[in-house]
Amino acid sequence: MTNINWKPNRDLDIPVYRQIIDYIKDKISDGEWDVGFKLPTQRQLATLFDVNRSTIIEALDELKGEGIIESRGSGGTIIVNNTWSLLTSTPPPNWYEYIEAGIHRPNLPTIQLINKLEYHRDIIRLGTGELSPELFPREMFSEVLMKISKKIYSLGYEEPKGLLYLRKVLSEYLKRYGIYVSPESILIVSGSLQALQLISLGILHPGSRVFIENLSYLKSLHVFQSAGMNLKGISMDNQGAIPNEVVSRNRNNMALLYTIPTFHNPTGITMTKKRREEILKRCESERVPIIEDDVYRELWLDKEPPNAIKSMDSKGIVLYMGSISKSLSAGLRIGWLVGPESVIERLGDIKMQTDYGSSSLAQWALAHWIDSGLYDEYLHQVRKELRIRRKVALEALDKYFSDIATWQKPKGGFYIWTKLNKKVSINNLFSEALKENLLINPGKIYGFSNNQYLRISYSYASLSDLDKGLKRLAFLVKKASK
Amino acid sequence: MTNINWKPNRDLDIPVYRQIIDYIKDKISDGEWDVGFKLPTQRQLATLFDVNRSTIIEALDELKGEGIIESRGSGGTIIVNNTWSLLTSTPPPNWYEYIEAGIHRPNLPTIQLINKLEYHRDIIRLGTGELSPELFPREMFSEVLMKISKKIYSLGYEEPKGLLYLRKVLSEYLKRYGIYVSPESILIVSGSLQALQLISLGILHPGSRVFIENLSYLKSLHVFQSAGMNLKGISMDNQGAIPNEVVSRNRNNMALLYTIPTFHNPTGITMTKKRREEILKRCESERVPIIEDDVYRELWLDKEPPNAIKSMDSKGIVLYMGSISKSLSAGLRIGWLVGPESVIERLGDIKMQTDYGSSSLAQWALAHWIDSGLYDEYLHQVRKELRIRRKVALEALDKYFSDIATWQKPKGGFYIWTKLNKKVSINNLFSEALKENLLINPGKIYGFSNNQYLRISYSYASLSDLDKGLKRLAFLVKKASK
Repeated sequence: MTNINWKPNRDLDIPVYRQIIDYIKDKISDGEWDVGFKLPTQRQLATLFDVNRSTIIEALDELKGEGIIESRGSGGTIIVNNTWSLLTSTPPPNWYEYIEAGIHRPNLPTIQLINKLEYHRDIIRLGTGELSPELFPREMFSEVLMKISKKIYSLGYEEPKGLLYLRKVLSEYLKRYGIYVSPESILIVSGSLQALQLISLGILHPGSRVFIENLSYLKSLHVFQSAGMNLKGISMDNQGAIPNEVVSRNRNNMALLYTIPTFHNPTGITMTKKRREEILKRCESERVPIIEDDVYRELWLDKEPPNAIKSMDSKGIVLYMGSISKSLSAGLRIGWLVGPESVIERLGDIKMQTDYGSSSLAQWALAHWIDSGLYDEYLHQVRKELRIRRKVALEALDKYFSDIATWQKPKGGFYIWTKLNKKVSINNLFSEALKENLLINPGKIYGFSNNQYLRISYSYASLSDLDKGLKRLAFLVKKASK
Repeated sequence: MTNINWKPNRDLDIPVYRQIIDYIKDKISDGEWDVGFKLPTQRQLATLFDVNRSTIIEALDELKGEGIIESRGSGGTIIVNNTWSLLTSTPPPNWYEYIEAGIHRPNLPTIQLINKLEYHRDIIRLGTGELSPELFPREMFSEVLMKISKKIYSLGYEEPKGLLYLRKVLSEYLKRYGIYVSPESILIVSGSLQALQLISLGILHPGSRVFIENLSYLKSLHVFQSAGMNLKGISMDNQGAIPNEVVSRNRNNMALLYTIPTFHNPTGITMTKKRREEILKRCESERVPIIEDDVYRELWLDKEPPNAIKSMDSKGIVLYMGSISKSLSAGLRIGWLVGPESVIERLGDIKMQTDYGSSSLAQWALAHWIDSGLYDEYLHQVRKELRIRRKVALEALDKYFSDIATWQKPKGGFYIWTKLNKKVSINNLFSEALKENLLINPGKIYGFSNNQYLRISYSYASLSDLDKGLKRLAFLVKKASK
């Protein structure tokens, strides 16, 4: 029988049967309980959850009504659908079988929903990790397009590592973070997510261990799990990840550390210089390579963050990821990966097999943008704007959330990691918010277990929407925690 | 002991020991003999190849000198390197282990070499499947960039299926091929290779069978094999693939047919309308879905090809792939996949997990290009240019190859599938050609076994280089077959 350590909390204002439904849905949406999984009997569930059998029946009935489970007589109660499959229209039988067979896991249902809903016009996006369209530098963009249209003589396939012009520009640009590398050690990718995909396909064995901060953007993705790797959380304090939790691989179990040391997503924590040194030292001695995800670096608001871990890496154990998706435009889809040339060659070869390289047009645009100095000019401007946005969001939180949540002022990036004081059903809050046209990013998608956090972002919604949205959200939180 | 049916050919002018070296290198580069593979003993090899033991020793010594094999005393002779790993600089020990562990296979060594050498300036590329930079419509491109710079208000992440504007334009555009689909059934991808990658990850089980024409572009890639699928070749005649070789999957063995019915790569064959109907009918009754790769369609030179198989597909078993990489610009990196909405949703979700969508800038550019009618205008022009190029290439072949090879006049696309009359070592020819700054695409990378074909392309090299290059190549072929 499955191991269940959870029990409903009778102190909450949420009915017990509803808490059980949420629990089961979470198990399914986290992929722990697959389609075909057999639930414990009603009697067993009643014992496990310490509730009456009638409460179990009430919960199971609702799940049946939603088409998530089915009774199969003596076969017991079976999960027949995950929320994901309920979201999509029913495919013809043969395709359905194919879809089910695919190797790659579907996104978490919440993420799929967020991905879709983000394109509904009237929704206020309070958690989106992207710059507001208001901040897009239209004139500068026109200027860039004009300039490159005169420079580009043809647009064919690029070298496996990407447009040489862009790699040269980046090789120069990275010096400001203390990173000295030749264009040959740089791979252009279509955003840092693709870099992770290539790493998972190119240099990791199924069964490898990937250490991540125990709250991490990476937990919301399936990129490593789909390739058969195991994620293991390591604790953080306010200096960043705790080094001694990175423990040596044994012979057959390779490992990596994935970390976001600068303006960490979702917590906003920036690793101190000292901690960076300690982490690097630890990983060197444990022979665990590091993936340093540094995509928020340019978005410092108070002072420049410490140099990248990569800048201290004399032994070549750090793969360094950068991107302009957060700082300039996600729509260009350009990022870069820096590492030992052998690794870059290997991943470049896989990239050629995956998509034959990133868009040359986008590479040209970015190379010119940085090379001309326009990017620096723009960054100066966007930091100003983000400071205003951060101020507005913090003021709104002070106004509406001071008695229901706690948070810290972020020093850069987009996120205010906000902890609700009272336990509420985050699933319910998400649905209720949606009814009010608010899209929120529940903290639990970034964690290994449920939590009471919300990732509030001040980067996307307009200033008035930020205030309006947070006010409305506070109202819903209060209602839910009554 | 390994099964070897091959014997050196003493009629060739290539020394027997060199033929043996080539044979072993081919086994390794085809991935049949892995690193760690133990060769038969010298005595056994001498028997198998029907040569003196001294010849074997000569061959093995050279392979040892190249670092490909090693004697391990009583452990026998072991393969310690594949040509691929020799091409890259030796990585630090720990990374090397990681690289070896990766799930995704490296490209074929020949392909890796071609991918790299294509960017050397002085090389004449006689096999490249890409339009010459000379044909790039620079002015039109400037016009497109100017226009979209006024239309784009921001460049953020797009919907999972891609820019709606582009999908609407494509939905309209595809009608001319008899394909009627809504934008909801179209997924924008970064070229058709990515579509294959998504299919391999999203809807196929490891162990699935993928039928391909027994000469096929797909054979030169690892996209399906890396995901654990098996390729199975089916024969072709001059009408296209033979339907009755597509045989039904059993319960546990799913299957797909991948076909390039129009201006097939590499043979140039176009499937007749009748054959398209037969293939579709066969696949329907065998319940084998079809991937129709139609990227060369617009490059007809004599008359328009029959409508796409997809246009006859009333049951939704065809996934249709299109792209502008061949017809306009590979560097935009934009293609499209059309299929049942459930499949498109599933693959769109995986795409979001892979790279968060294709470059918005490139999508905007293409949408405007097609929508404005500029693409049609351009296609008219490029067909004219390709007719000239085809003529020049055919004239050069007539001049230099008439006594050493045979070929057919292609009716569209880029390729003249050229069969050498005499057996020569294609590996040697490839190396010798390289010394003369000629890059050729050996036919064997597209086949299941060695063959005497070259894929000659008239799309890339300049007209004078085409003539010069083919002249030089003919000389080398004659020298090799003496």
